[in-house]
Amino acid sequence: KKRYNITLLPGDGIGPEVISIAKNVLQKAGSLEGVEFSFREMPVGGAALDLVGVPLPEETVSAAKDSDAVLLGAIGGYKWDKNEKHLKPETGLLQLRAALKVFANLRPATVLPQLVDASTLKREVAEGVDLMVVRELTGGIYFGVPRGIKTNENGEEVGFNTEVYAAHEIDRIARVAFETARKRRGKLCSVDKANVLEASILWRRRVAALAAEYPDVELSHMYVDNAAMQLVRDPKQFDTIVTNNIFGDILSDEASMITGSIGMLPSASLSDSGPGLFEPIHGSAPDIAGQDKANPLATILSAAMLLKYGLGEEKAAKRIEDAVLGALNKGFRTGDIYSNGTKLVGCKEMGEEVLKSV
Amino acid sequence: KKRYNITLLPGDGIGPEVISIAKNVLQKAGSLEGVEFSFREMPVGGAALDLVGVPLPEETVSAAKDSDAVLLGAIGGYKWDKNEKHLKPETGLLQLRAALKVFANLRPATVLPQLVDASTLKREVAEGVDLMVVRELTGGIYFGVPRGIKTNENGEEVGFNTEVYAAHEIDRIARVAFETARKRRGKLCSVDKANVLEASILWRRRVAALAAEYPDVELSHMYVDNAAMQLVRDPKQFDTIVTNNIFGDILSDEASMITGSIGMLPSASLSDSGPGLFEPIHGSAPDIAGQDKANPLATILSAAMLLKYGLGEEKAAKRIEDAVLGALNKGFRTGDIYSNGTKLVGCKEMGEEVLKSV
Ligand SMILES: CC(C)[C@H](C(=O)O)[C@@H](O)C(=O)O
Ligand SMILES: CC(C)[C@H](C(=O)O)[C@@H](O)C(=O)O
Repeated sequence: KKRYNITLLPGDGIGPEVISIAKNVLQKAGSLEGVEFSFREMPVGGAALDLVGVPLPEETVSAAKDSDAVLLGAIGGYKWDKNEKHLKPETGLLQLRAALKVFANLRPATVLPQLVDASTLKREVAEGVDLMVVRELTGGIYFGVPRGIKTNENGEEVGFNTEVYAAHEIDRIARVAFETARKRRGKLCSVDKANVLEASILWRRRVAALAAEYPDVELSHMYVDNAAMQLVRDPKQFDTIVTNNIFGDILSDEASMITGSIGMLPSASLSDSGPGLFEPIHGSAPDIAGQDKANPLATILSAAMLLKYGLGEEKAAKRIEDAVLGALNKGFRTGDIYSNGTKLVGCKEMGEEVLKSV
Repeated sequence: KKRYNITLLPGDGIGPEVISIAKNVLQKAGSLEGVEFSFREMPVGGAALDLVGVPLPEETVSAAKDSDAVLLGAIGGYKWDKNEKHLKPETGLLQLRAALKVFANLRPATVLPQLVDASTLKREVAEGVDLMVVRELTGGIYFGVPRGIKTNENGEEVGFNTEVYAAHEIDRIARVAFETARKRRGKLCSVDKANVLEASILWRRRVAALAAEYPDVELSHMYVDNAAMQLVRDPKQFDTIVTNNIFGDILSDEASMITGSIGMLPSASLSDSGPGLFEPIHGSAPDIAGQDKANPLATILSAAMLLKYGLGEEKAAKRIEDAVLGALNKGFRTGDIYSNGTKLVGCKEMGEEVLKSV
């Protein structure tokens, strides 16, 4: 029997609710495919701040590194919003991404036929959208130095950050993107701001140079401002998008809202060799935490990505994906995706419905 | 009689077509309000590259500086896309913004009742959208140093740019934004990435500190990724948005596409004292250049902004705005905003219809 060690990081807000459900789903899907899991739960984000005073304790890092995959709920909340930067929950997440070296963030944005009306876009625009944003996750302006706030010669404060990409960082994320596009519809759009930024000029040049190795993938380039427009105008034109950390942050959130079901969307963050980090795209939603209102499907689908991309357990992953579609087809909906004629359920009941269908 | 000197910069692609129409509209609206214009046409962008080998000739800069306002068509085209950075048409535009010190870029995004169906958003989401993006235009990562592409100690290429804001740069754009919000619905949303970037932490702190001087304006803060989502989810929640150069580039384009009529949207770029720069938000559209297909309304409305924000000639501005609505109410539409039951016209005919109604 195959055994995997999974680190669970429930985090803050609705994180614990959705993680406990995803854990059960993972366990059942695994056992039906002859796979066993050992789970270890560790603190991160605000929960860790409250417990031990830092957003990413050493023990959490080593547990995560020692495991086969990491499943994260969500981090952050009003309570810690005024904390200094190094004591923010978000800083724990950035440190975790850096520690695990998960440079490749895969964020699918898919409009399911069952949920097309949840989009604010017209039906004919939203229907059939199925794109993947491949976001660089451990470089660029998120991590670049020098950075800080200093006082200049006039006694005036100046805030500064550095957008920086080395050739090998661009190449490795581009390769992940080409491979991803190859397994999808074979179209890759690289998004940059090469008409203004030198970091983007190098980005575009390296991505273009790699295209020769992927003759089966059709590569195009687009400026980020235009991409932000085109996602609204005609999202179906996109298959796979590859972009830097900050543009990927913005565009993947925009893309996920276009689907109208951000409570549905998972993500995978992958490294070259170590364990991957899997988490829903949505935040910690402190306003509905503990009220059994959260949509657990994004975390459940993140567990499916964990199986597929993290462990190579495609069959168990497929079980989970099908179970989610099953629950939706039976008409079950949490509040965020509810529409007339469907059955409104809470977080737990949705979890149980998925579990039944696994 | 009042006289103003206007520098016209037709630029590339559809630029010359739309500028020549806007010029006529400006002249008529002015003469009806006792205002006269002297126009001087100068080259910029690709047109200037072809003519004299640089994207912003000295003569163009001094003509612009010596005038009361500058009206620009559009710049750029495939022809110059592979040029080195300092010989790109876009570089000419950035140099012009810097030379005129137009740090405040106002970009309205309005859904006109006549055009609500042009949006890809559902009618109930798009209807009534009326927001203004105030984008910082002469600072941030667009102009920050150090910047470039260098070879590091491993012989590897590295591309880098600097996002940088001094306190006074934040304060002056924030003041423009507070004043703008005050004249609108009194709501200002400052967009940043203060959970990650130090430049944003300073930005948020300075904007928040100024709020005390504008007690009649309701200030909120939003992360840029969330703003990109909220613009799709519920654009009506926004009145005035203030943000940095690169986030403003992305969000204003997204917002303009949400209206569905990017061919309709003007912009104003203002300095502390010198002449303002007024231009449509759309690009040079080389694929339809010279075919009498362009929508001249964005440039005509930019001329209205020139009158209102650049010269304080509110009455003449109002004449132009009303004339545009008049032409739309009569059912005239260029291809980009055409829908069943309206009258399809070319660029020139649309211009003549507006001219008639001035
Ligand atoms: C919480 C924040 C630091 C994070 C990011 O900006 O990467 C989040 O927005 C995300 O996209 O995962
Ligand atoms: C052409 C380009 C340099 C410019 C910018 O990025 O500012 C354009 O996108 C704009 O928004 O006016």
